[in-house]
Amino acid sequence: MANDPAIILVRPQIGENIGAAARVMLNFGLTDLRIIAPRDGWPNEKATNMAKKAVSVIENAKIYDNLTDACHDITKLYATSARQRYMIKPEFSAKHCIEDIINFGESNKSAIMFGQENNGLSNEDINLADAIVTIDVAPIYSSINLAQAVAIICYECYINNNKQNIEDSKTRLGNAKLANKQELAGLMKHLSEELDQTNFFQEASKHKKMLININNIFARANLTDQEIRTLHGVISALKK
Amino acid sequence: MANDPAIILVRPQIGENIGAAARVMLNFGLTDLRIIAPRDGWPNEKATNMAKKAVSVIENAKIYDNLTDACHDITKLYATSARQRYMIKPEFSAKHCIEDIINFGESNKSAIMFGQENNGLSNEDINLADAIVTIDVAPIYSSINLAQAVAIICYECYINNNKQNIEDSKTRLGNAKLANKQELAGLMKHLSEELDQTNFFQEASKHKKMLININNIFARANLTDQEIRTLHGVISALKK
Repeated sequence: MANDPAIILVRPQIGENIGAAARVMLNFGLTDLRIIAPRDGWPNEKATNMAKKAVSVIENAKIYDNLTDACHDITKLYATSARQRYMIKPEFSAKHCIEDIINFGESNKSAIMFGQENNGLSNEDINLADAIVTIDVAPIYSSINLAQAVAIICYECYINNNKQNIEDSKTRLGNAKLANKQELAGLMKHLSEELDQTNFFQEASKHKKMLININNIFARANLTDQEIRTLHGVISALKK
Repeated sequence: MANDPAIILVRPQIGENIGAAARVMLNFGLTDLRIIAPRDGWPNEKATNMAKKAVSVIENAKIYDNLTDACHDITKLYATSARQRYMIKPEFSAKHCIEDIINFGESNKSAIMFGQENNGLSNEDINLADAIVTIDVAPIYSSINLAQAVAIICYECYINNNKQNIEDSKTRLGNAKLANKQELAGLMKHLSEELDQTNFFQEASKHKKMLININNIFARANLTDQEIRTLHGVISALKK
């Protein structure tokens, strides 16, 4: 998508985290990775190995000395931060950050930056940003792994940019088709008749209520016509 | 939260993934980790190291031989799967899965299970599940790291269970207060008067339009009263 942000890792320390970030970027369709002063130099074999099939993101990553250079074409910059900063700046949730990027439209080139593993972004880094992005975490342990933080942001980016293609829920039927209500009623009639010949319905007064309960179990099960035939067979077999 | 699902890792292979999963679980307030037949045995030092300060989740993890035992108290089981399965079963997005868990209420004990790194859950595992959960990923590279998949699910769990406490956007002012419109007008008047004494407004016809444009820059900036005073100082200093 033209709205896709660049991901900027500022002074990352651990190669595996860079690789894991690259992999999850591609999982969610992002490819523009920029890295500022990686501690262990570049290229980094651990990053490449951890990226698995997203090695193209690693190979195309751009390395910079400083944040200003990395942002030469960036018009909206978001700084991820867990700690409260004494700087007056809008703070967005991950979802709201992506909505803000989409809101500014395709002529805007945005980036989301992440600080180093042990103490995050510096105040100087954050000063350049339009807004702070905070991933909502539980107070019990708020320190999230760098690549996991990248994952959450990339995930929000993907689902908000692809809302029209994403279904909250579906059931794949393939070549199967759901049984119609007459087929379901036929199964219930078969079961009821067979049970009538046993002493299952001990009290006549409960006969109707019991049948309604049993009917409801199968009504809820989204049975296919094939499954209805299977259950007819099960009832007949049990009866023998 | 009473609605919090257990996380079940089925035959995980890599200790670091188990540890990263435990860490991100606690980041999002989840603590019930169950592991079925971890390849490298248990305890696993790599898992413990990777969990960082979520070592309690690792220490309290329960190890099982098989899925049925792990689900002894589970009433709703969700299977994460990327591949299409030839089984007729509801498929939910990550968000919808959590909504389903919340929908079934606190008397329900749910679990979300994740398969092994190289080929996911078996059809036998999935057969026991109420529904399949699919994390929406880009077609270009759909294979998501195990701990990253756990992260997305735990994140959705946290934000959907804490909607009332999560703000999409806020600006922390601390002890600062925003400038009122009179203070802003005062700054614009100061700037305009100083500029009138220069040849900045070369054409009289553009004077008003230019002032409106400049005013708009500062009107958009959410200036505090302290920042207004700073800008008065900047204008005076430039003039000298």
